[in-house]
Amino acid sequence: MQDALLALQRYWTGRGCMITQPFNTEVGAGTANPATMLRVLGPEPWHVGYVEPSVRPDDARYGENPNRLQTHTQFQVILKPDPGDPQELYLGSLEALGVDTAAHDIRFVEDNWASPALGAWGLGWEVWLDGLEITQFTYFQQAGGQVLDPVSVEITYGIERIIMALQGVGHFKDIQYADGVSYGEIFGQSEYEMSRYYLDDADIEATQRMFDTSAAEAERLLDLRLPSPAYVHVLKCSHTFNVLDARGAISTTERAKAFGQMRSLTRRVAQLWAERREELGHPLGVVEASPPATVTELPRVSEPATLLFEIGLEELPHADVSTMTGAVRDSLEPKLAGTRLAHGEITAHATPRRIIVQVADVAPAEPDAERTVRGPRTSAAFGEDGTPTKAAQGFAGKHGVAPEELSRVEVDGVEHVAVVRTEQGRTAPAVLSELLAELVGELRADKNMRWRDPKLSFSRPIRWLLALLGDTPLPVAVSSLLSGTTTRVHRTAPEPEVVVPSADGYLKFLARHGIVASAAERRRAIVSTASELAASVGGTVDTAGEAALIDEVTNLVESPTPILGGFAGRYLELPEQVLTTVMRKHQRYLSVRGEDGLLPHFIAVANGDCDTDLVREGNESVLRARYEDAAFFWRADLQRKPEELRGGLHKLTFEERLGSMADRAERIARVAAVLGGTAGLSDADRATVARAGELAKFDLASQVVVEFSGLAGTMAREYALRAGETPAVATALAEVEQPRGAGDALPVTNPGAVLALADRFDLLASLFAVGANPTGSSDPFGLRRAAGGVVTILRATPAAGAITLRAGLEAARAEVAAQGTTLSDEAVAEAHDFIVRRYEQQLLDADHEHRLVQAVLPLSDAPATADLTLAELEKRVDDEDFAALVAVVQRARRIVPEGTAPTYDAEKLTERAERDLHAVVVEVSEQLSATTTLAEFITIAGPLVAPINTFFDEVMVMADDPELRAARLGLLATITHLADRVLDWRAL
Amino acid sequence: MQDALLALQRYWTGRGCMITQPFNTEVGAGTANPATMLRVLGPEPWHVGYVEPSVRPDDARYGENPNRLQTHTQFQVILKPDPGDPQELYLGSLEALGVDTAAHDIRFVEDNWASPALGAWGLGWEVWLDGLEITQFTYFQQAGGQVLDPVSVEITYGIERIIMALQGVGHFKDIQYADGVSYGEIFGQSEYEMSRYYLDDADIEATQRMFDTSAAEAERLLDLRLPSPAYVHVLKCSHTFNVLDARGAISTTERAKAFGQMRSLTRRVAQLWAERREELGHPLGVVEASPPATVTELPRVSEPATLLFEIGLEELPHADVSTMTGAVRDSLEPKLAGTRLAHGEITAHATPRRIIVQVADVAPAEPDAERTVRGPRTSAAFGEDGTPTKAAQGFAGKHGVAPEELSRVEVDGVEHVAVVRTEQGRTAPAVLSELLAELVGELRADKNMRWRDPKLSFSRPIRWLLALLGDTPLPVAVSSLLSGTTTRVHRTAPEPEVVVPSADGYLKFLARHGIVASAAERRRAIVSTASELAASVGGTVDTAGEAALIDEVTNLVESPTPILGGFAGRYLELPEQVLTTVMRKHQRYLSVRGEDGLLPHFIAVANGDCDTDLVREGNESVLRARYEDAAFFWRADLQRKPEELRGGLHKLTFEERLGSMADRAERIARVAAVLGGTAGLSDADRATVARAGELAKFDLASQVVVEFSGLAGTMAREYALRAGETPAVATALAEVEQPRGAGDALPVTNPGAVLALADRFDLLASLFAVGANPTGSSDPFGLRRAAGGVVTILRATPAAGAITLRAGLEAARAEVAAQGTTLSDEAVAEAHDFIVRRYEQQLLDADHEHRLVQAVLPLSDAPATADLTLAELEKRVDDEDFAALVAVVQRARRIVPEGTAPTYDAEKLTERAERDLHAVVVEVSEQLSATTTLAEFITIAGPLVAPINTFFDEVMVMADDPELRAARLGLLATITHLADRVLDWRAL
Repeated sequence: MQDALLALQRYWTGRGCMITQPFNTEVGAGTANPATMLRVLGPEPWHVGYVEPSVRPDDARYGENPNRLQTHTQFQVILKPDPGDPQELYLGSLEALGVDTAAHDIRFVEDNWASPALGAWGLGWEVWLDGLEITQFTYFQQAGGQVLDPVSVEITYGIERIIMALQGVGHFKDIQYADGVSYGEIFGQSEYEMSRYYLDDADIEATQRMFDTSAAEAERLLDLRLPSPAYVHVLKCSHTFNVLDARGAISTTERAKAFGQMRSLTRRVAQLWAERREELGHPLGVVEASPPATVTELPRVSEPATLLFEIGLEELPHADVSTMTGAVRDSLEPKLAGTRLAHGEITAHATPRRIIVQVADVAPAEPDAERTVRGPRTSAAFGEDGTPTKAAQGFAGKHGVAPEELSRVEVDGVEHVAVVRTEQGRTAPAVLSELLAELVGELRADKNMRWRDPKLSFSRPIRWLLALLGDTPLPVAVSSLLSGTTTRVHRTAPEPEVVVPSADGYLKFLARHGIVASAAERRRAIVSTASELAASVGGTVDTAGEAALIDEVTNLVESPTPILGGFAGRYLELPEQVLTTVMRKHQRYLSVRGEDGLLPHFIAVANGDCDTDLVREGNESVLRARYEDAAFFWRADLQRKPEELRGGLHKLTFEERLGSMADRAERIARVAAVLGGTAGLSDADRATVARAGELAKFDLASQVVVEFSGLAGTMAREYALRAGETPAVATALAEVEQPRGAGDALPVTNPGAVLALADRFDLLASLFAVGANPTGSSDPFGLRRAAGGVVTILRATPAAGAITLRAGLEAARAEVAAQGTTLSDEAVAEAHDFIVRRYEQQLLDADHEHRLVQAVLPLSDAPATADLTLAELEKRVDDEDFAALVAVVQRARRIVPEGTAPTYDAEKLTERAERDLHAVVVEVSEQLSATTTLAEFITIAGPLVAPINTFFDEVMVMADDPELRAARLGLLATITHLADRVLDWRAL
Repeated sequence: MQDALLALQRYWTGRGCMITQPFNTEVGAGTANPATMLRVLGPEPWHVGYVEPSVRPDDARYGENPNRLQTHTQFQVILKPDPGDPQELYLGSLEALGVDTAAHDIRFVEDNWASPALGAWGLGWEVWLDGLEITQFTYFQQAGGQVLDPVSVEITYGIERIIMALQGVGHFKDIQYADGVSYGEIFGQSEYEMSRYYLDDADIEATQRMFDTSAAEAERLLDLRLPSPAYVHVLKCSHTFNVLDARGAISTTERAKAFGQMRSLTRRVAQLWAERREELGHPLGVVEASPPATVTELPRVSEPATLLFEIGLEELPHADVSTMTGAVRDSLEPKLAGTRLAHGEITAHATPRRIIVQVADVAPAEPDAERTVRGPRTSAAFGEDGTPTKAAQGFAGKHGVAPEELSRVEVDGVEHVAVVRTEQGRTAPAVLSELLAELVGELRADKNMRWRDPKLSFSRPIRWLLALLGDTPLPVAVSSLLSGTTTRVHRTAPEPEVVVPSADGYLKFLARHGIVASAAERRRAIVSTASELAASVGGTVDTAGEAALIDEVTNLVESPTPILGGFAGRYLELPEQVLTTVMRKHQRYLSVRGEDGLLPHFIAVANGDCDTDLVREGNESVLRARYEDAAFFWRADLQRKPEELRGGLHKLTFEERLGSMADRAERIARVAAVLGGTAGLSDADRATVARAGELAKFDLASQVVVEFSGLAGTMAREYALRAGETPAVATALAEVEQPRGAGDALPVTNPGAVLALADRFDLLASLFAVGANPTGSSDPFGLRRAAGGVVTILRATPAAGAITLRAGLEAARAEVAAQGTTLSDEAVAEAHDFIVRRYEQQLLDADHEHRLVQAVLPLSDAPATADLTLAELEKRVDDEDFAALVAVVQRARRIVPEGTAPTYDAEKLTERAERDLHAVVVEVSEQLSATTTLAEFITIAGPLVAPINTFFDEVMVMADDPELRAARLGLLATITHLADRVLDWRAL
């Protein structure tokens, strides 16, 4: 291992990096070392490499987990400015480490990085070596809240992982550290003891005190304008925070507070550091911007020709690969249309490393064109004597013709003088050179970054441009880039950069170099080969179910090479979701299914030619390690009964004012019991709710869920079943977590639905109680998602539908209060409104008409009812009778002042029309009830239409007699009041 | 610089070391990294190298000082076990760094290391490269309070220094760190800012809190048996302590307390770590002891021959080189005398690397010898019939002869039977092999160490034995060592190990290899060459004044090569003491004097052949750096007036309960004023005392004194003169610090003496007041030295002689009290006694007779008076009259019970003898006064002798009449009382 570190130091020294030392206070990553965090700021160049033992208390595992260490070793490289070929330099370093980059499958897979505590973010990749993440590769865009210019390239090697792969060992302890000495023999004891400290034994109060002390020191030192020691103290804050976190002593609000504190300190450090460097006159000098490229001479073409334009990139995120094909075509089309250049079909393709546009039959030049410029009216242009007036002279002079040369043109029947000019068509090279430069300059993705180029900004750096018009090189200059006639093929090809002879047949040209430009073709190849491979072991690939994954994989490679790998059958003991989550999310592997479930196989899709056996073995060992990890957790979890795990929730802080996760689970259980009653569940269901309540959320304390948080609920079901719980209880325990987000599956059992509701009502009620309402974009507890879940469940679940928002919130409020936290009426109202807003949003997102949505919102305390009303409303909205009803209700509302009580003294009513109306109102109101639906209401209230209209025709509401007037207004108010029960009529 | 670090990593990796990382919390030195501190414990092997940025807050200089950094870079190597040739390995690493070890003067100069805070010590060297200390090389003997077995070799390179020398730059900021980037450009800012933090801005309370928190965590983690995290917290304690110290926030008692705390924590960590490693079964294995050497066959010799025995060593401390010559001869002589081996003269020589004994004309074997064993008396051996008795039979049987073969021997006139046995003489090889082995095994120096050998212990490792008897190899086996016939010459010689053909002419043989075995010869060579060199620049070397230094230098080399170097004349602006202190103490250079003082030259004594110009340049640049340092401080100090510096004493804590150094200086001034009165100083002297008092100790706040604490006082004088103080004041300011220790110069002016006394009385009074009396070997404030100083001054200074210990202590007590600390009578008495004990010791050390010393001790409140008495006593001690006087005083004392009052009713005396005595007593007593000296007393009291003797002859003291008895006893008590004023007669 030490040889590897020396090799890296040698390699990077040879590339102009200096070597510095690990930082001498604990840091979580090499990034936090001032040699990165501070040096990336400002305009000074900085090329450095260093080893960094990175302390992650959270990763402490007593040295038992094969891949997880409380202190792992990073090798960190910073290249500032971006040297233009950092990926190639990086691959060279792998060769220096003894990795045959041509034989292995090495990939740059999108991985963007952000550290809120450091106010830093960047775009880049994780580098995969046969599926193993060995390096983090990032273009730093911001640090300490400062936009970085120049941008730095950060390369972070995970040394233990790389070494484990190179040495082929399965546990970090088995790494040969030096001749005859293993990693475990040297560091095993400290791994265990430091884990004990971080996980079990650090004194929480003392550590908290150190955090506070360091934070205060940092503040003070900032006030003294000393960024270096201030930053040391920020790092000490960060470490002590991590210790507290590993000890489970950090609640969500404390986390937010500490992060805010650290972010603000880091921000100040960064700013002050930059100022200080400037004061010192930038001792290391200033990076010069790359000079702009220019086109010196344009070629001439004489025949129509194909345009080939390729934008060469460092690996694009897969989503950008998909969108860029269309985006580039959509950008080019109108641009071309804006010229007079004749051309044929525009086609576009994209791979991770290139965006290709081809335009068929581009004319060699634009045709010339005549353009008539209108001048003054003829009548104003010439005097009576026919001599040109000043206006004509001016106009003619401006266009460089003699007044007598002016022609005539009629506009709207009035004759004007005019000049007719012939515009010469530009050559295709001139048009295209400009237009393509524009296109590149305007390229944008969802997330954009900067690299060394002084102006460009895109998803990933643009490294080359290829432009040919037929066989003719077409110079295109964009910022510092100038197009050429070469393209880059696989980096490990014998000749990685090749000259492209002609625009025609480019896709075939690429194909000959092993690159499949067409995404559709890549996809087809993957699906067909993967299916064949699956079939070879008697299985299939669920190409429909895995469509999204296949799309992603398609755009991770330029030359898909599906490889069938296997894993030990013993891992099939693990729940399928664990296995597939790992394959899909972590490894982008397709799983292989047999008749009776998963087969112990997977399909990885490598890029290009490689040593298939080597790559297979590599991928297999990565998966093995991950499964070993999971199995380790799984077996550890199975050692403990659900009750025991449930006890562990006491150690998980939920929110400092709201107690532990155990407290929350208890509340959920109680609220669920109440709501089960409300929903009128069967005895069996209520027993299920009771039992599931006792165990609710117990799997949050399981190691698998700590590792794979997305499997919360899923694992509860698995563990519950294995612990002998009934399937109903197990299912309810899974369903309590559903839906995980918009579009996710909902609980299908009533107990599950009730528990899920209780979970969310508790979350909302408790957090609104302590004022932790979401603000702006910050919603650390996921309250929006919770509110959305409430609504979705209530809308979808018949039994749960009996539960109103208010009933749910009140039940939750009672339990929160029972644990000592009061929820004010106002807070309940806010929470209620918050949920209603989610409901409103759901309706609008589903394209319901805005006014109809508004009309049913008053009913949303029971969203299912509101749904029914809305459906009815949408059915009726064009119905004449309904329109008449709406009209009279509106008419009544318009005249009744706000706040008029819906009562009146019928005796005062004298006119026939009003007495008739009164009679009908009495009749209608007797038929209405609290549960009257809109449809029923329309039927029942139909008879009101005619009398109301008559009333308005014949009766003067605003009578002089105040009592009479009051009675008439009361009558109308009674009508609107009756109507408001089913709808907000005003919205219609 | 980074290339150097990589070169070292490569070099040591090639020698079986693993490379680990700097520790990720601040450490003061690579030694504190657990990779040293913990790994040297226990029996596991450990070979490691690592870089360590070493944080020394105390060395912070804002980046301004050319050689001092708050964080410097160490490269640390641990070899466990000692590989047997660590020095040679080390020299190889210098070659790897590009140092031509043959051209340079590389020396291993005694430097023992101890860290009380780490409970660790070791013996070794600092390695000099042309006079520059570049490496610390230590055999670790103890760590965390544990004796180390096996011993580890620790090599600590000071990287910045080495690089500055290799790159020939004068300021660390100018080091080329990497291509085109200087150290200052990279680290200058942080050097400044961290200096600000350490020296000025760290929050003392917060830092103290961190110290306490870390200490408590360490304790807790130890209780939990987790040595690794506990040690991390010990390191955090240590760092925060260092920060507090640099901030000047640590008083001497706090220091002692913190050190105690850290030592005890480290001790517990070490013990626990060792236990844990044992529990883990020593994962790295166990070092095997070197196997014992054995002598398989002894040679035969037939002629007398010279014995040559050489003990080959790693560089001995110079003091051991001196003593070993005699010690080895003194050990060998009686051993040889204990054999019957005939031999000639024994000669011995020593150099740093070898102890040589030669014995001339060693006989080839011991002669045979006859031995007579006496048996029973002949009369008891044979019956009357001449048959042997049982006794005779038994005796004969025991010796294997027949009774009739017994011979006869006469002892004290009685005839005994006897057996005469011939003892065969052993061969010289047999005798010498055993005896020399014994000699080596018994070798001991003042401080001894262990290395890899399982049994031997000596000042430095013994690496080879050479033993020849004439031309015959003589095998000698001691522990793991077996003698051979080779010796080692200069390490850089083409053939560093050579075969010695014969014992004869060995010194010449060595001389041919450039080694001067005789210390006398080396010394002569140094003196003569140095004098020649000095003369060449018109100067001389003070060979008498520098005798001790020349002795030292003589024993630092095997082949002295004096080299004349120079320094810039501008440094002569510095006070001479600064210049010579640096030359003598730091560099072991001889200074060169011209007619008018120092010349800008020095003489360094290199070892063996080397590139003289290169070595000269190297030494010159070391001296330049040191002088530059000193000049930097000097100039900085001169910027500030003495008063200003004096103000700085407020920041120096003296003792937490006793305030700052400024408080102490104030007390000194006041006490001095009082004592000046007591001593009856002239007005001029009193004015001098007053002014010097105002400035007393101001130079403690100067940078030169902070750097060279031995120049306290000296610098005060220099600064005072330059600030326009009178010479008298300047001298007094210097003299207040004198004497610095036993044998040092004393104040010669009265004001100086009075201030020096005040200084010491204050130190004693104040510290006894707070109970900080020295205990055992612990005397952190140097109270023994202070008490000795008081006595020496009082004995030597006429004016000061009027000051008594009690007067001085009382004056000091008053000032201590004025500042709020009460000094009890008991404490004053203790302090008084403490000083008296020093006086007693001084007298005994000066070989005064014990009883006479005891006799004058009661007078020691005024040591000068006691001195006079003692002198008189020694003159009189053999005088008959005095003896008679002593006899009568003793006679009187013997009969008078303890506590008898020296009064009597003369009327009661009746006998003539007693009345006569009474009359003489009255007469004598009238002539005596408080200032009567012993000499006067003897004259005055002489007339008492006869009457006392008559009294005893004629008078019965213990008369029956109680009144009479009382009167007689009172009379005698009066006599002893009178006598006691001048002496303690009991002691005589």
